[in-house]
Amino acid sequence: MEILRSVKELREFIASCNGEIGFVPTMGALHEGHLSLIKKCVSENCISIVSTFVNPTQFLPGEDFESYPKKEESDIKMCELSGVNAIFIPNGREMYFENEPKIKAPEKFANILEGKTRPGHFDGVLRVLTKLFNLVRPTRVYMGKKDAQQVLIVQNMVKTMFINTQIIPCEIVRESDGLALSSRNVYLNDEQKCHALRLSRSLMNASNLIKKGELNVSEIKACMLNTLEPLQVDYVAVVDREFNEISKIELGNAIILVAAYVGKTRLIDNLWV
Amino acid sequence: MEILRSVKELREFIASCNGEIGFVPTMGALHEGHLSLIKKCVSENCISIVSTFVNPTQFLPGEDFESYPKKEESDIKMCELSGVNAIFIPNGREMYFENEPKIKAPEKFANILEGKTRPGHFDGVLRVLTKLFNLVRPTRVYMGKKDAQQVLIVQNMVKTMFINTQIIPCEIVRESDGLALSSRNVYLNDEQKCHALRLSRSLMNASNLIKKGELNVSEIKACMLNTLEPLQVDYVAVVDREFNEISKIELGNAIILVAAYVGKTRLIDNLWV
Repeated sequence: MEILRSVKELREFIASCNGEIGFVPTMGALHEGHLSLIKKCVSENCISIVSTFVNPTQFLPGEDFESYPKKEESDIKMCELSGVNAIFIPNGREMYFENEPKIKAPEKFANILEGKTRPGHFDGVLRVLTKLFNLVRPTRVYMGKKDAQQVLIVQNMVKTMFINTQIIPCEIVRESDGLALSSRNVYLNDEQKCHALRLSRSLMNASNLIKKGELNVSEIKACMLNTLEPLQVDYVAVVDREFNEISKIELGNAIILVAAYVGKTRLIDNLWV
Repeated sequence: MEILRSVKELREFIASCNGEIGFVPTMGALHEGHLSLIKKCVSENCISIVSTFVNPTQFLPGEDFESYPKKEESDIKMCELSGVNAIFIPNGREMYFENEPKIKAPEKFANILEGKTRPGHFDGVLRVLTKLFNLVRPTRVYMGKKDAQQVLIVQNMVKTMFINTQIIPCEIVRESDGLALSSRNVYLNDEQKCHALRLSRSLMNASNLIKKGELNVSEIKACMLNTLEPLQVDYVAVVDREFNEISKIELGNAIILVAAYVGKTRLIDNLWV
């Protein structure tokens, strides 16, 4: 496996590639969730590339950019063992310039839910992905459904900016107790981990209600808020696959989302129903 | 020559291409200036593509978007006779979506000169070119030096967003009397054409001063303003190749620019010295 640290090295690697390229863009600190994307990527493409770049422009002032978990050695090992052909580990100076264009994510999708709490977050995501897509020119890009709104916004960019790639949304990976995997879970102590289970449990309860025939969103939300108590909830939302808020669930076209704080750690989870 | 009117047709054409692609993005109403870009493109690439799209997002409210000259039949004929392989003539509905990302050109380059008078203009230019570059994936892109600031801003985008193409700036083409060719020249009546010559003449006078050894920018500007009188001048500027205003000309690294109104028509011209 090639370890590429500069844009120049990545460009040379891509120029030498022959065949379909699969790409998994990450911020490193890889866990089993990432691993499932990486394995799918390796199985479906001739060449597989993983990037691990903690992208400064998608963090807001006061967020955890500086303290974001880093596990470079283990990232490299995980990619190598999974059959990845190249890992791209650039630093910020490689990726950004003093004067450069900025990207503004579409308001309709980017100013709600995650974007409402984290204004500008998706602008930074699109900015770095535009750069990475231009460099890697992947046939397929693998992204986790855990960041559901991100998946939608990136799919919108690919469609509307005519980017020649396909976004492959991949299933959320959970601990056996239901907790959705996240690099930020390392911030949680044992007691907080217990509390964190309320997010997945609220979604499970929503799912059970729906299985029993309850499609009314206010009922579902009430049940979820009940389960989430006493966490500080940022939002509980039910949207269609275009992220329009809905009042009645249409099966096969809905996403239930939750964001809540456990201590100072902000966690998100969702369920596609 | 293929006449492509939809994104789908263009995508199919590009997918069928084998070899280096040269691209000339235009707003149509092709004249000898465009033709010089097209000829260079045809001579340097295996496949040559011209787009003629009057891009709404680079016009400001009140500008001449609705009345911008259109000469589709002659555009097609000129491309065909020049050996172009495909002309892309989309309509706005093909190119833009209700919800999509926007691009913000870098402030340092985009808020001065043309961008000061036409705020948002370069954002629209970068937005449409991003789409066109993603679709065409050209090896080389041919752009006229007449839009000097545009060339710089597009080169900046290609560099900083890691777009896999090369921008080729091409010389300004002039009438025998010195008038720089522009699709907007059709707005001028005979008397106005006479007045319009003051732009190129002011640059010629600047050039003569410089040849005589005058490198002081205030002297050069004063001489130019004198020549431009009685036109309504938008700006006369002398910048280095990074568009920093300079007070003394360094040969090989300067651009002298002028923008002025002849009647209601805004004209620009420049000289690279």
